[in-house]
Amino acid sequence: MDVQEDQTIAEGYKLKLNSYDLGVDIELADAIQRIRFEHPEVGVVVVTSLKPRIFCAGANIYMLGTSSHAFKVNFCKFTNETRCAIEDDSRNSGRRYLAALNGTASGGGYELAIACDEIYLVDDGKSAVSLPEVPLLGVLPGTGGLTRLVDKRKVRRDRADVFSTLAEGLKGKRATEWGLIDDSFPTSKFQEAIDARVKEITQTDGSPGNGGVKLNALTDESTADTREYKYIRLKLDREKRYADLTVRGPESDLPTSPEEIQKLGDSYWPLRAFRELDDVLLHLRVNEPGIGLVCLRTEGSIDNVLGVDRTLAANRDHWLIREIILQMARVLRRLDLTAKSFFAIIERGSCFAGSLLELALSADRTYMLNDPDQTIEIATSELNAGALPMSNGLMRLQSRFLAEPDKVDEVLAHKGSFDTEAADKAGLITFAPDDLDWEDEIRLAIEERTSLSPDALTGMEASLRFAGPETMDTKIFGRLTAWQNWIFQRPNAVGPQGSLTNYGKPTQAQFDYTMT
Amino acid sequence: MDVQEDQTIAEGYKLKLNSYDLGVDIELADAIQRIRFEHPEVGVVVVTSLKPRIFCAGANIYMLGTSSHAFKVNFCKFTNETRCAIEDDSRNSGRRYLAALNGTASGGGYELAIACDEIYLVDDGKSAVSLPEVPLLGVLPGTGGLTRLVDKRKVRRDRADVFSTLAEGLKGKRATEWGLIDDSFPTSKFQEAIDARVKEITQTDGSPGNGGVKLNALTDESTADTREYKYIRLKLDREKRYADLTVRGPESDLPTSPEEIQKLGDSYWPLRAFRELDDVLLHLRVNEPGIGLVCLRTEGSIDNVLGVDRTLAANRDHWLIREIILQMARVLRRLDLTAKSFFAIIERGSCFAGSLLELALSADRTYMLNDPDQTIEIATSELNAGALPMSNGLMRLQSRFLAEPDKVDEVLAHKGSFDTEAADKAGLITFAPDDLDWEDEIRLAIEERTSLSPDALTGMEASLRFAGPETMDTKIFGRLTAWQNWIFQRPNAVGPQGSLTNYGKPTQAQFDYTMT
Repeated sequence: MDVQEDQTIAEGYKLKLNSYDLGVDIELADAIQRIRFEHPEVGVVVVTSLKPRIFCAGANIYMLGTSSHAFKVNFCKFTNETRCAIEDDSRNSGRRYLAALNGTASGGGYELAIACDEIYLVDDGKSAVSLPEVPLLGVLPGTGGLTRLVDKRKVRRDRADVFSTLAEGLKGKRATEWGLIDDSFPTSKFQEAIDARVKEITQTDGSPGNGGVKLNALTDESTADTREYKYIRLKLDREKRYADLTVRGPESDLPTSPEEIQKLGDSYWPLRAFRELDDVLLHLRVNEPGIGLVCLRTEGSIDNVLGVDRTLAANRDHWLIREIILQMARVLRRLDLTAKSFFAIIERGSCFAGSLLELALSADRTYMLNDPDQTIEIATSELNAGALPMSNGLMRLQSRFLAEPDKVDEVLAHKGSFDTEAADKAGLITFAPDDLDWEDEIRLAIEERTSLSPDALTGMEASLRFAGPETMDTKIFGRLTAWQNWIFQRPNAVGPQGSLTNYGKPTQAQFDYTMT
Repeated sequence: MDVQEDQTIAEGYKLKLNSYDLGVDIELADAIQRIRFEHPEVGVVVVTSLKPRIFCAGANIYMLGTSSHAFKVNFCKFTNETRCAIEDDSRNSGRRYLAALNGTASGGGYELAIACDEIYLVDDGKSAVSLPEVPLLGVLPGTGGLTRLVDKRKVRRDRADVFSTLAEGLKGKRATEWGLIDDSFPTSKFQEAIDARVKEITQTDGSPGNGGVKLNALTDESTADTREYKYIRLKLDREKRYADLTVRGPESDLPTSPEEIQKLGDSYWPLRAFRELDDVLLHLRVNEPGIGLVCLRTEGSIDNVLGVDRTLAANRDHWLIREIILQMARVLRRLDLTAKSFFAIIERGSCFAGSLLELALSADRTYMLNDPDQTIEIATSELNAGALPMSNGLMRLQSRFLAEPDKVDEVLAHKGSFDTEAADKAGLITFAPDDLDWEDEIRLAIEERTSLSPDALTGMEASLRFAGPETMDTKIFGRLTAWQNWIFQRPNAVGPQGSLTNYGKPTQAQFDYTMT
């Protein structure tokens, strides 16, 4: 157990971290998710540690020094997505996160702290906050550290420069003065001060107390080349380096009131299907590095999807429905941020409508069959109108129609579904091959895509997917991650004389000082 | 001669490119700069080529395949700065740039075209625009191509995806439909159509016709470790990997009317000093890769700098003064974007005031001597209040005080100069060591900085210098460049089987398809 949960404090919820490494990140992501669904009455989450000097990047350093580039990149991305989930909870569900640093928080530990709303540090003459990556490791605090420092906490840039090159970091008084933490308290008063702050918050922010919904573990059946969930099917073609990912639409008889939905619990389609989608995306990222292209497909009834969307949109002020929609939005953002190519394939029996239309709008390209004998359709719903924002804060429709913003309203105002020709005319799809060309065109598109350099595709997709405004999230994923990626590859980090290679060894890193 | 200049067309100015490689970029940057100062009457610049199929990245590919990583990165940065200078001219001086593509424009050639305001392509059945970097070379159109495609021309993201993976590109009709060009014309009508468009623009945009100012070549005297211009002195300590860069302030008797200034020409201090600063920055980037830290110093009279700033601010509507201020702004942005650490050192005899205070505000840190026996001072001027914006569109003071925006007005409203303690209190400097500690503190700061990993510092500085809003420019330099950097390092590009290594050889690139 890396994360111990403790609900004994009044109204609050404590997450006590036992170390800080990948295990913690997975458990932390899980704990935050469960707090949101299972404990909606919790108004404040205190992130603290079981023993002092816990919040450090120690475990990660060895991981970074020894694991593959692909694993490092995926790990950093997941870690940052977890931090974004904390901020999403704070921004959209009103839960406050307090980092109660009862010891030194360095590296990833301090990066986790600055994802919280407030940071308090024990003032014991030795505890400090620090980002020692640059001075000790020759890499960056690249999972949000640098960006959150200047963009979220707005630390003055020259002070951020000093802080980020100071291995030992800064202690209470100066850390507060520079805006790195919110306050510090002596050891004897620390617990009292945190408790008082928790009480203060929970008195002002009333939270619903009507019980939660248990999130059960997902189950899937896997073979060598398939992975089958209740609503998701993954089929891998490893030789051709692509996968078919099919999402099954909802049943027709789903409840329409929040009370019935709460009773149905985690088997309610949008909660279950998007949790499964999340799981399969993480699986593809970490366990299937050779798969370069994912074809997104759907199966089911457009009317049923639109029915669920209507229920969600009508009840979005109910805590559970709000959490379900926020969860769907997070999973779709995980899809946008996945370093694989995505093609949406729209054909007979598909149900790319409303929330599932977002899959097609997330895709790098969309192919829609133009069949003279059978109408193929897609449709929008209220959920396409801002409920499921991208990391840049825009609807996917807005990102698509940056040049023609009026088209967003036109598409949303369109009555009924779009057949292939209407979808093409509206700009919702990329290609509309007819029945005769369909098979060949899809096959060729897959072959062509998977023949290209995966690195070039990753950089190209990261650039083309996020046009328009930038947010702290896109800056972290698009800018900081890219710099971190670059540095992780450099001989100064991973060469025989590199900083990561030599960390913790009696030998010293030897840098090539040719600046670029 | 790679760029041929031709002023024979009515009111317009033609830049005919003879090839597209580094030589072109240097001449192009020079030509644009000279048009602005020497030909203020020119209202439109037509960028075209001496022979068809000229606008291609061919020459660059071999350069990218064979030169060092440091050179590639510097080349790409310079190239993009030149494109930003075109856009700066268009935005702030009202000159229109037309790309008249009389043949295929691919790669860097098309990237140059999308830096122009309008793009016209000949429709001869074979000419096309294309970004073949991903499909042909396994790297990115990384000097602005991808970002300008979706952020400037706002090409729909799925179409941008198709276009950027299509080696042969797109021809007239579809290229226009997708927004990649503005129009196409048959060969027989091409020249006529361009001439008509030039006429149309020059009739609406009246330009001043009062003659220009000749930009003479800069002269400097160099030894092995120094470089001495009229207003700039560079002193290198290669062993310690740092340089002192000193800017000398203006004389006291400079003219105060635009007419006298125009008569004085390119020896007027702000024009000459900032052109020399530009030159020395490029020299440091390309020829001194081993220098990691530059200490920025100034020498002269604060009153004289403030006098020049007053003249510039009072006459900013005059074309020449406007061009001088815009040039200063571009040079300061070049400083912000230089991948070296900068410390500003403020001591006796320095003149960090107004435009030269921007040097201190650009620096990663600022050290200001606190001398009980002699007051050291800095001062603001009207030029600090928005005339010299960073790439993110903010004043440097705004970037500094993101957390306390009121401080910007406070600092600008402050009467008189700031002594060391006032500067410290106002948040304008980082450290204020006293006379006893000064020498040691600067020496230690230099030693410490130059001991860190240069890669980590580059990534850190790129992240901390540009907090706050993002613009197309910061996206290109911060996000796209970082991805390009990463891809340039990967075995899939530069390894023995890599795409750059094998381009143009009978052998084929072999990719490692493990996606990250």
